[in-house]
Amino acid sequence: MTSVQERAAELTFAELYARVQQFYARHMWLLDTGAAEEWAATFSEDGVFAPPSAPEPIAGRAALTAGVEEAKQRLSEIGEQHRHLLLSLDVVPRGDGGIDVRSYAQIIATPRGGDPRVHLMCVTYDLLVFEDGELRVKHRRVTRDGRP
Amino acid sequence: MTSVQERAAELTFAELYARVQQFYARHMWLLDTGAAEEWAATFSEDGVFAPPSAPEPIAGRAALTAGVEEAKQRLSEIGEQHRHLLLSLDVVPRGDGGIDVRSYAQIIATPRGGDPRVHLMCVTYDLLVFEDGELRVKHRRVTRDGRP
Amino acid sequence: MTSVQERAAELTFAELYARVQQFYARHMWLLDTGAAEEWAATFSEDGVFAPPSAPEPIAGRAALTAGVEEAKQRLSEIGEQHRHLLLSLDVVPRGDGGIDVRSYAQIIATPRGGDPRVHLMCVTYDLLVFEDGELRVKHRRVTRDGRP
Repeated sequence: MTSVQERAAELTFAELYARVQQFYARHMWLLDTGAAEEWAATFSEDGVFAPPSAPEPIAGRAALTAGVEEAKQRLSEIGEQHRHLLLSLDVVPRGDGGIDVRSYAQIIATPRGGDPRVHLMCVTYDLLVFEDGELRVKHRRVTRDGRP
Repeated sequence: MTSVQERAAELTFAELYARVQQFYARHMWLLDTGAAEEWAATFSEDGVFAPPSAPEPIAGRAALTAGVEEAKQRLSEIGEQHRHLLLSLDVVPRGDGGIDVRSYAQIIATPRGGDPRVHLMCVTYDLLVFEDGELRVKHRRVTRDGRP
Repeated sequence: MTSVQERAAELTFAELYARVQQFYARHMWLLDTGAAEEWAATFSEDGVFAPPSAPEPIAGRAALTAGVEEAKQRLSEIGEQHRHLLLSLDVVPRGDGGIDVRSYAQIIATPRGGDPRVHLMCVTYDLLVFEDGELRVKHRRVTRDGRP
């Protein structure tokens, strides 16, 4: 873990904040364009995603990839484009090299030929880490406004 | 005011911009979770908030706290979660250590068991200052699109 | 082009990312407040804007200015305020001094006396350049979700 710790510690807050914003832009672009494997690769090998809609957390890249493939198929069938925007980031470096990031997540859905709407308003709690100089999601928990 | 001036002057634009984004993320999280006193503490002691809905500006932390408590009660009664997102920040350091920030403010509302909506689209004009190394709102004026 | 190349190369990623965010905040504020000429001046002299709604790209500041004047007139007639938010920025400096920026663009529309809505959800592909130390749009292409 030494290199990870050094990486987070050597960045200024501005550099870290910009890197996290850039990471999310690409990470969600991969999700929204259905690049399932590439998206899963932005998680750690053992990355965990605990969405509110799943009974159990989704663990590991194979399961994460399968989840995106499913969602892609479903969105294709209903003819909707979804966009995930992680905004209002609260970025807190931890002593162990990890980075806690809390964000407001908007999912904007647009049906084919129709008007966009705010589909879901969520809060995302991420633990990010640097792996080989790149940010990765090690753990993600999401809560949805208005739903249990 | 010397230390305040020095603080704003010694930061790079990147550092200032990241600090302002981080400040708003926390500031609005406190508001949206109903942490009334903690939110009021992110204003200067003599901080002023001029919202479009109030006949007079709200001045001072006690009044700011009371305002959040009222809103919290009202949102609880109607069963809505509100999220405030300050986006598209235009950050301009002033010569006196203050920082002018204009932003587009979205309020996303989600009723219990229902779908989110863009409740209000606003423009926020803030004067921020550094106090003991922390950003605070010294003055805030808000206008709402579509309303006088 | 030497100075342009040097400019982009000498900035840290954090500084570039903050500058781009600030640029968009001002650029879209000019558009949304109907400051047609000032908005057009944030494009290069030969800047090109390829919106999905136009049969041909709009090229040069005179044409860009005219486009905003038209939109301003139309929005005034229907009594709507539009706000353009460029979010989730993916910022990539090119070797030639240009900067590729892909973003998620929300247009929030609010009718007079009415409620705001997500009017359009778009993806914006910009080529930015530094001119006299200031960012300018050299080329913009926009696609709209849900529309061809």
